[in-house]
Amino acid sequence: MADCDIGIYGLAVMGQNFALNIADHGFKVAVYNRTKSKITDFMAEEAADKPIEAAYELQDFVNLIRKPRVIVLIVKAGPATDAIIDNLIPYLEEGDIIIDSGNSYYKDTERRAAMLTEKGFNFLGMGISGGEEGARHGPSLMPGGPSEVYARVQPMLEAVAAKAEGEPCVTYLGPGSAGHYVKMVHNGIEYGIMQAIAEVYDVLSRGAGMGAGQIGDIFQRWSKGLLSSFLVDITGNILVYTAPEDDKPLVDIITDSAQQKGTGKWTTQDALDLGVSVPTISAAIEARIISALKSERVKAATILQGPTPSFDGDQAQLVDALEQALLATEICAYAQGFAALHSASEEYNYHLNMADIARIWRNGCIIRATLLNDMSRAFTADNALSNLMIAPYFAELLAKAQSGWRESLKIAVGMGIPTPALSSALAYYDSYRSGRLPANLIQAQRDFFGAHTYERLDNTEGTAFHTIWQEI
Amino acid sequence: MADCDIGIYGLAVMGQNFALNIADHGFKVAVYNRTKSKITDFMAEEAADKPIEAAYELQDFVNLIRKPRVIVLIVKAGPATDAIIDNLIPYLEEGDIIIDSGNSYYKDTERRAAMLTEKGFNFLGMGISGGEEGARHGPSLMPGGPSEVYARVQPMLEAVAAKAEGEPCVTYLGPGSAGHYVKMVHNGIEYGIMQAIAEVYDVLSRGAGMGAGQIGDIFQRWSKGLLSSFLVDITGNILVYTAPEDDKPLVDIITDSAQQKGTGKWTTQDALDLGVSVPTISAAIEARIISALKSERVKAATILQGPTPSFDGDQAQLVDALEQALLATEICAYAQGFAALHSASEEYNYHLNMADIARIWRNGCIIRATLLNDMSRAFTADNALSNLMIAPYFAELLAKAQSGWRESLKIAVGMGIPTPALSSALAYYDSYRSGRLPANLIQAQRDFFGAHTYERLDNTEGTAFHTIWQEI
Repeated sequence: MADCDIGIYGLAVMGQNFALNIADHGFKVAVYNRTKSKITDFMAEEAADKPIEAAYELQDFVNLIRKPRVIVLIVKAGPATDAIIDNLIPYLEEGDIIIDSGNSYYKDTERRAAMLTEKGFNFLGMGISGGEEGARHGPSLMPGGPSEVYARVQPMLEAVAAKAEGEPCVTYLGPGSAGHYVKMVHNGIEYGIMQAIAEVYDVLSRGAGMGAGQIGDIFQRWSKGLLSSFLVDITGNILVYTAPEDDKPLVDIITDSAQQKGTGKWTTQDALDLGVSVPTISAAIEARIISALKSERVKAATILQGPTPSFDGDQAQLVDALEQALLATEICAYAQGFAALHSASEEYNYHLNMADIARIWRNGCIIRATLLNDMSRAFTADNALSNLMIAPYFAELLAKAQSGWRESLKIAVGMGIPTPALSSALAYYDSYRSGRLPANLIQAQRDFFGAHTYERLDNTEGTAFHTIWQEI
Repeated sequence: MADCDIGIYGLAVMGQNFALNIADHGFKVAVYNRTKSKITDFMAEEAADKPIEAAYELQDFVNLIRKPRVIVLIVKAGPATDAIIDNLIPYLEEGDIIIDSGNSYYKDTERRAAMLTEKGFNFLGMGISGGEEGARHGPSLMPGGPSEVYARVQPMLEAVAAKAEGEPCVTYLGPGSAGHYVKMVHNGIEYGIMQAIAEVYDVLSRGAGMGAGQIGDIFQRWSKGLLSSFLVDITGNILVYTAPEDDKPLVDIITDSAQQKGTGKWTTQDALDLGVSVPTISAAIEARIISALKSERVKAATILQGPTPSFDGDQAQLVDALEQALLATEICAYAQGFAALHSASEEYNYHLNMADIARIWRNGCIIRATLLNDMSRAFTADNALSNLMIAPYFAELLAKAQSGWRESLKIAVGMGIPTPALSSALAYYDSYRSGRLPANLIQAQRDFFGAHTYERLDNTEGTAFHTIWQEI
C-alpha cells in the first residue's frame, strides 16, 4: 500500500506536469487535490498508464507514501499554503519531509520551517521554474533548507530536473529560505528581461511601424546569437503566431494590461531593505502597474501631448542597435539580481554560491540563456565578484553594446516610446561606472536643510562636517 | 507649577527649534531630553529669556504641563519612540495627548494609536517638515488621528505653522496614520526632486563642463520662474558657496555618497503594495544606493567603458532644455506622490483631501514650491483627479516642456551622464499617455510559459483566454 516514493499535493497545471515528470523517471507518485474532479480527470487522462496513484482523502494520500514520506506542495502561495500544512500535520510522522514548491515569500518559508522543525518534521522551501513545460520535461529547481534533508531527496530531484551539459539544474542552495529567496530574485530578473523585450518590440512596432510577423522574425534571428534564451525564443514564436480563427497575429489582439504575482515586487522591496539597487527590476514592476491602468491611459492619450512616432532612419541599423540595447539591459538585470543575492547571502547567512545559481539557471527555468554559461564561469572565477558587469567578458559585451544602446534610447525618447527598463539599465551602467556622481549636491542639500552633515573628499577618516550655509 | 501649555520631549535640532517657535507664539513650553547636558545648554543659550521651562526628570517634566497634557515627541523614529512612550505612560493621565512628530513608519503609528487609545490616552501622528529653519520659523505640519483630538491642539498648531497667503500650513488630514502617511509621501517626492536637481547639475557640470558657481547662478535664475521652490533656491545658494577656509566651492569638496533615512524607501515599497507606480521616487532611492557604493564605482570606472563627456552644442539651449526637463520631472514626482496618496486614502480610509495637502505644502516644508498653488487649484476642481498630469494647467506645462526634456535626455544619454530620475519621469509620462503599451506581449509570454491566460481587445467582458502556443 505505502509504496509511493513521493506525494504531490496540488494538481493545477504545475502539479500535474511535475507529477508526470517524476513518474517518467521511475518513481511512483501519489497525488491529491482539494477539488476531487481534478483528480478524476487527471487519473483518467494524463496519468493513465503511469505509476501514479490518487487518493481522494488526505489520510489515504499520506498512507500511499513510503516512510519517511516526501510530500511536495505545489499550491498557491500565501495563506492557502499554511492551511494545507495545518491540515497535513495530523497525518504526518516524525521525519517526514514537506517540500513547498510554491512561490512563497521567503519570510513565510522561514516561519514555516521553524514551526515544522519544532514539531519534528522536515521542511524544504524549493523554487521551481520553467512553467508548464519545465515542470513536465525538466524544471530548474531551487531548494533550500537543512542540507541533510536535501541529501535525502537529492537523487529524485536530480533525476527530474532539467539538464544542462549533462548536469542537473538543481543543487543545494543554502539553509532556511535560501531556495525561495533565489527563486524570488530569479523572477525579478525575469520581470526585467520581459519588460526589456516588450520595449524593444514597442520601438519596432509603434515606433518603426513593423508588423508582428516581421518583428517575430527578428527575435527568431536574435535567439540564435548572444541573446539566445528561452524568453527571446518564445517571443519570436509568439510574434509570428496567428490563430486559425483570427485574421491577424494573436499578439495584436491581446489586451495590453499585464498582470503580476508578488515575486517581482518582493525582489524590489527586499532589495531596498538590503540597500541594493535593482532599478531595472523596479522599472519592470512599475511598468506592469502602469499597463494595468488601461482606462486611465486611454483617457490620458487624448490629453497629454507627445511626438507622433515615426522613424525614417535605417531600419536595419535600428534593429542592430536594439539588439545591443536588449543584450546590455539583460546583463544589467542579471547583474542587479546577483547583487541582491550577494547582499541577501550575507544578511541571511545563506552562503550562496553564485556560480551554482548561474549553473542551475542554464536550463529548465524561464530566464535560461546561453549567457548563463558565461555568468557561471565569471562567478567560478570570483564568487565575491562585486558586480557581474565588471567581469571581463561582460564588461567587454557592455563596452561593445553601449553605442547601439545609447542610439536606441535617443530614438525612443525622440519618438515618445517609453523605455523604462532599457533606460534604467543604462542609468545603472552609467552610474556604476561613474567614479564621481552628483550625490555631493544631495549631501549638501541634506546638510543645508536638516543639518544631516556630510563627508569631505579631502578627509579620508569619514569625519562628519556641518556647514551653516546661511543664517536661519 | 503645572502651567506649561505644551511639553517637548527631545532637544535635538528639530526639537529645540520647534520649542523656540512655540514659545515665540505666546505659549509656555516644558522641555525634556534624555541627555541632560543638552537641556542645560539649551536653557542657558537659545531658551534663555523665553517662556520655556526645563525638567531633568520625566516626572517633573510631565508635572510642568497643564492638564490635559499635550506632549510632542521629536525623537528618532523606530524603537526609541516606543521606549519613550513606554517610559512616559506611568506619568500620564487619562485624556493626555501624545503627538509623535518623528518620521515614524505609518504602520507603527497605527499600532501606537491603538495601544494608547486602549489605555485612555490620546494620540496624534504628525509629520513635520521644513528642517531646522521650518521648525524654528514655521514648519508644514501633517497631523493625523481622531479629529476631536486635533481640534484641541489646532489653535497652537495653526499659530506655529508656516503661513501661505495668510493660511496656516497645517490642517487635519485624516484618522489613524494619515499624517505620517502624507509625510512619508512628502519625503518620497522630496527624494525624487532632489535627485532630478542633482542630475541636472551633473549634466551641466561633468557634461557641459560648467563650474559650480556658474551652475549656481542658473539655479538662482530658475528659482525666480516656474521652478520657484525651496529646493531649487537652496541649490543655487549651495552651488555658489565657497567656505572662507577653502579655495574652491564647498560642493566640489563634498563626498558623493548620499545617505538616506527610511521614508523615501517606504514610499516606494508601500506604493508597490498598493499597486501604484512611483518610478521617479524609486529611481531616486536607487540612485542614492548606488551613490553609496563609492569604492565599487571608483573601481568600475577603470573597467566599464563609456563616452568621454563633452558638449559642443549651444550651452544656453542646453540650459533651457534642462529647465524644462527639471520642471517636467518635478511635476511627475508630485503626480506620482499624489497618486500614491489617492490609493492609500482608499485603502486605509484616510479620506484625504488632496487640495488641502497641496495647500499645507505651499510653505514651511522641503518640497514647497510655487507650483503647489496650482496643484491645490487642480485638486480643488477635482479631488478625485486620477493623475495630476492630466489637469489642464499641468498637461499644458508638460506639453511645452517635453521637447526640451527629450533633448536633454538625448544629450545626457549620448554623453554617458546617468539621469535615472529625469528618464524615469519621461518613461512615466510616455507610458501614461500611451493608449496602447506593449504589455500585450508580456501577457502572451505569461500565457505561453505559465498558462496565465490573457484578455482580448475584441472581448469587453474580461474573459480569460488561453492559447496552446506550441505543444510541450
